Amino acid sequence: MARAWHLKSRPDGMPTAANFELKTLADAPLGEGAIRVRNSWLSVDPYMRGRMNDVKSYVPPFQIDEPMTGGAVGEVIESRSPGFAVGDKVMHMGGWRDEAVVTPDMMPNKLPDIGVPIETWLHSLGLTGATAYFGLLSAARARAGDVVFVSAAAGAVGSAVVQIARARGMTVIGSAGGAAKCAWVKELGAEACIDYKAGPVLKQLQAAAPKGIDVYFDNVGGEHLDAAFACARQEARFAICGMIDAYNDGKPMALRYIMRVISQRIMMKGFIFTDYLPEMAAFHQEMGQWVASGAVQAKTTVRDGLEAAPDAFLGLFSGANTGKMLVRL
Amino acid sequence: MARAWHLKSRPDGMPTAANFELKTLADAPLGEGAIRVRNSWLSVDPYMRGRMNDVKSYVPPFQIDEPMTGGAVGEVIESRSPGFAVGDKVMHMGGWRDEAVVTPDMMPNKLPDIGVPIETWLHSLGLTGATAYFGLLSAARARAGDVVFVSAAAGAVGSAVVQIARARGMTVIGSAGGAAKCAWVKELGAEACIDYKAGPVLKQLQAAAPKGIDVYFDNVGGEHLDAAFACARQEARFAICGMIDAYNDGKPMALRYIMRVISQRIMMKGFIFTDYLPEMAAFHQEMGQWVASGAVQAKTTVRDGLEAAPDAFLGLFSGANTGKMLVRL
Repeated sequence: MARAWHLKSRPDGMPTAANFELKTLADAPLGEGAIRVRNSWLSVDPYMRGRMNDVKSYVPPFQIDEPMTGGAVGEVIESRSPGFAVGDKVMHMGGWRDEAVVTPDMMPNKLPDIGVPIETWLHSLGLTGATAYFGLLSAARARAGDVVFVSAAAGAVGSAVVQIARARGMTVIGSAGGAAKCAWVKELGAEACIDYKAGPVLKQLQAAAPKGIDVYFDNVGGEHLDAAFACARQEARFAICGMIDAYNDGKPMALRYIMRVISQRIMMKGFIFTDYLPEMAAFHQEMGQWVASGAVQAKTTVRDGLEAAPDAFLGLFSGANTGKMLVRL
Repeated sequence: MARAWHLKSRPDGMPTAANFELKTLADAPLGEGAIRVRNSWLSVDPYMRGRMNDVKSYVPPFQIDEPMTGGAVGEVIESRSPGFAVGDKVMHMGGWRDEAVVTPDMMPNKLPDIGVPIETWLHSLGLTGATAYFGLLSAARARAGDVVFVSAAAGAVGSAVVQIARARGMTVIGSAGGAAKCAWVKELGAEACIDYKAGPVLKQLQAAAPKGIDVYFDNVGGEHLDAAFACARQEARFAICGMIDAYNDGKPMALRYIMRVISQRIMMKGFIFTDYLPEMAAFHQEMGQWVASGAVQAKTTVRDGLEAAPDAFLGLFSGANTGKMLVRL
């Protein structure tokens, strides 16, 4: 019997375990065109916090007492779709559950066997990697020689940004919470990594990038974004991927240096990786090579068992993860 | 004997008359390549507030006890430059004074006789008009059919933006302080004009643009910028020209809706009109036609006499001007 996490209540501020409920799904016969998938890995991502609010955004909100959804990989165990056979490995959006009836709107994708562990399709070769790749190279138009600042650089997206930037000949300054994460970010190729828990971001960024930054990849907002405004060079470009600092607190963001957007002619662009779907083939090709060659490596933080999914998700907001947070079933 | 306004002291917050001192200039012999100009009109502009601080920016700061500079037009009364003859009308950067020794670094430009009053070169055909034109059409890439929101729409730049947007087939919503200014903005072709003194900007903008905005031309920052974030449609573009709300108060800007930059994929670009100098010929041609045909009209607020220059400048921060603030000598 399949089970899925349901949204029990909407959080006011930081979500808690009480907002989630694990329930058995009613037996569902497989409709024409659908497949049944036994999930092996689930993805939890910061963007899901927005879906817990009852607000129209780029993805629809989760509904109270309805099963939640998200990225997952697994194996087809029953198929009524001509595109899929039993045994196929697939990536799809029927996550937060152990077994999924996957309809075409959940975007099932058959995974080619390129010799990587299946969960790679949930990080380097999935949403995470595509977000890093298109944000850095398309939204921010970063190029060889640029000085790139990345916040949450030990996170799933941030650590991919660091490595893609290095592979393309940029100088990288990361920011992460704590000495261990910073050490890892430097191992990935960053020239410096700011420990935002050890002191103000701005002073540390000024020291790490005395000549300023050309690109800022924002996962955080708030103090990090403000420091990037303060240190931006002429014609700097900011890709705004996330503002996790602001997801839960509901307070206005206080920016002291935003006026420099004028004097430095800063360009700032919000994006979602799906904006670049037409260029996905280029991403898979270049990123596939980097993953195969080891130029891009991924760390994962793994929680075991479907029961652990809310805890894994909540850990994203307390920095419990290094690299990509995953749930292994 | 020429006189010029000097910077007496740097303001802390809002500038006052005490920061300025009118002094006689020492007699200056004319160097090779220079011209002597009797100024007839002086420009005062919000960007000059930044030059009163001792901060490196896109224009160098004014120096204590040194004469201030700025846009001016006048007539050549002595020339040691082969490009200029006595009697030529010129625009240059030797403002804040009645008579100027203009060296090439002050960018003197001979004014063609196209049948417009000479002060037009300080507003519609000068820095003001170019700022409106390039900000709207190049920085924000506004196009026919867009819904454009303009703050300080009764100001010099804003009123030009309203008219250029109308001439190019856009729908315009302005914001200005007070019923009289709003009435004028609507006369210029805006579909609606928000009176920011009459209530919160956000509620009024939501009512005026129920389907949202495609473009925001920012002269103000703060509450206006935040309302634009709140009302932005997908792929909205913001041209950031000025943030006059923040020039004097030194407080961080509080933005409640900046996170929408991600969900709406907003692009925000800071600019200065000089970024587009290579396209100046196109501006002069199109804007010249609009001025000649009356499609773009300018209101000016005029203060008389060199003595009035600081008062004219300070009036920019209390909304004393409708349209372009000028000093007539």
